Amino acid sequence: MASGALPPLRSRVAPLPPDLVLPPVVHTRDSAIDAAVSEQLLLTGQPAHAYGRLGDLSQQMARIRAGTAWSAEPPQLLVFAADHGLADEGLSDEPQTTTGQRVMDLLAGRTPVNRLARQHGVALTVVDAGLGHALPPLPPPDAMQATLQLRKIAYGTRNARLGPAMSVPQAVAALHAGMDLVRQLPGDVLMLGDTAVANEGSAALLLSRLCGVPLSDAFAPGMLQMMETEPALWQKRLDVLLAVGTRHRHAVGPVAALAALGGYEIAMMAGAMLQAASQRRLVLLDSVAAGAAALIARGLVPAVGDYLVFAQRSAETGHRLMLIHLQAQPLLDLDMRVEQGLGCLLAWPTVLAARRLLESGVQ
Amino acid sequence: MASGALPPLRSRVAPLPPDLVLPPVVHTRDSAIDAAVSEQLLLTGQPAHAYGRLGDLSQQMARIRAGTAWSAEPPQLLVFAADHGLADEGLSDEPQTTTGQRVMDLLAGRTPVNRLARQHGVALTVVDAGLGHALPPLPPPDAMQATLQLRKIAYGTRNARLGPAMSVPQAVAALHAGMDLVRQLPGDVLMLGDTAVANEGSAALLLSRLCGVPLSDAFAPGMLQMMETEPALWQKRLDVLLAVGTRHRHAVGPVAALAALGGYEIAMMAGAMLQAASQRRLVLLDSVAAGAAALIARGLVPAVGDYLVFAQRSAETGHRLMLIHLQAQPLLDLDMRVEQGLGCLLAWPTVLAARRLLESGVQ
Repeated sequence: MASGALPPLRSRVAPLPPDLVLPPVVHTRDSAIDAAVSEQLLLTGQPAHAYGRLGDLSQQMARIRAGTAWSAEPPQLLVFAADHGLADEGLSDEPQTTTGQRVMDLLAGRTPVNRLARQHGVALTVVDAGLGHALPPLPPPDAMQATLQLRKIAYGTRNARLGPAMSVPQAVAALHAGMDLVRQLPGDVLMLGDTAVANEGSAALLLSRLCGVPLSDAFAPGMLQMMETEPALWQKRLDVLLAVGTRHRHAVGPVAALAALGGYEIAMMAGAMLQAASQRRLVLLDSVAAGAAALIARGLVPAVGDYLVFAQRSAETGHRLMLIHLQAQPLLDLDMRVEQGLGCLLAWPTVLAARRLLESGVQ
Repeated sequence: MASGALPPLRSRVAPLPPDLVLPPVVHTRDSAIDAAVSEQLLLTGQPAHAYGRLGDLSQQMARIRAGTAWSAEPPQLLVFAADHGLADEGLSDEPQTTTGQRVMDLLAGRTPVNRLARQHGVALTVVDAGLGHALPPLPPPDAMQATLQLRKIAYGTRNARLGPAMSVPQAVAALHAGMDLVRQLPGDVLMLGDTAVANEGSAALLLSRLCGVPLSDAFAPGMLQMMETEPALWQKRLDVLLAVGTRHRHAVGPVAALAALGGYEIAMMAGAMLQAASQRRLVLLDSVAAGAAALIARGLVPAVGDYLVFAQRSAETGHRLMLIHLQAQPLLDLDMRVEQGLGCLLAWPTVLAARRLLESGVQ
């Protein structure tokens, strides 16, 4: 009190695992590009600010490409599938086998995601990041409507109430697998989707841990859900998450939190974002799990945020809070809770329009 | 005080002009259709509510068509151009000649609207609803990138500060012209756009009058505008609108308010909505002026609301309030202030996706 000097803040930055290899990512800010974009927008006969977020998106895309043309390769949608040990605690209305079923639906082309991807010329890859069960027999190769990549790190995460969801080496392996997948894909637009029963709980734990948001807000039900699910059940689920958070209270760095609280789909999405950003690709994401992956990726390499475009906002309080922490303004306001990248596909025409805005007036 | 009985509410419903012909519009609610939609959505492997507003839109579209197939005709975008006498009061940063310039840009195919319309296969028609000046020589017919419809009711509205913007017969003529235009167009999807310098003031006056919103809220600047425009100038503009509102305080019914405070583009959009709804067409709209037209159309025939889909929300307080009064949840959250139907074109792929959602699983 008397001295007036505050003690130095204790750094909460945990040392990174020595075998984690992070690709270099550079910030995209460039005032020369911004000036060129404003000039180009003026050619459309409207002041640049009249385009609102569409104009902001044009600017972000111009910054990402920094003068190089967009490739003619199709955009790539990666849907990461994994199971969560936390589902054993009754965190979801859906049985855990739903994850595998969704993968089969995607492979057989039975979902709106397949239809929209085909329509927009988007290449679809489904990744087994850590499904809890073996997949049933696949459709014959000529009937497969998506590429399947087998990158299983384990048969689902462990139940985080009983111990860390994964070991740190497993978390690092999943991050590296995400990077490797993107390295092997062509194109300069990456869309990220996921399908994983109960991963909203994992995403809420990561939001709470990495941004200091109370768990009761990070896992608050949306208006609609509150009407669907009885409050007692919701409280029971929140109590599970509170117990998990307390158990792993020392897991504070991005990799430590990921290992203790995360899922394999979240880890691989974080790795995929890092690799895509290092290659100056635009990354489109939509779900709360992808948002959690963005928090981890940004925690590891802050510049990655410059490459992210957020497709949609759902009705959940946690998703809204997460987007604020990510300083993200999503394009669509659809309250969807479908994952699998459907929001990315719905937002894609708007992204294309922003890109083409800079070509207007030239014709 | 002693009797306890309140005096009966004085009806504010003004009699309609006897020569106004309103087409019949029926409500679309149908629980059999709703049940069929829910079942169809379940076939996609997700619960219906997971689709949020996309699912709501599917339902609305199924209700509108009521079992009949969507036509193969292209969607029709009508852009209504008109000038406002109120612009003389310095309500806009842009000179009034901008309206005519925008029309020329649309006809010559120089705008992002032309580009997007072409890309989505949308037929574009520009309507001279009441331009204040004669158009310069048009491009040669083979270079015209949009159809031009000459439906001028007058050379701009009168300055509403000095008298009614239009006479009641002029308002009726504009409503009928809007209906007639739609009657002559094919297809079952109508998009409405507008270009009219200073029509935000007219829209704010109509919102205030028809919904009881204080003018200072209906014409409040958005966050962004507040930074661009000095508060004193904003207050000066608001004072103009307050004077106009006071002068026409007895114009309370939808047609009387339209005549006193409106614009020709607003009147024609209202007529177009009524006709489209009576033919069970879906109507997509995006601007604050189109919202004002929706208030008038709904005031005349309440069922018209069942056919409206709102494309986007801008940053202005007035637009947000208007959407709440219209019970509308727009699809895009882009803060755009470009008019001319650009928001409709950007939202169109999402509308198409909602329509196709009901075709999933069938393949």
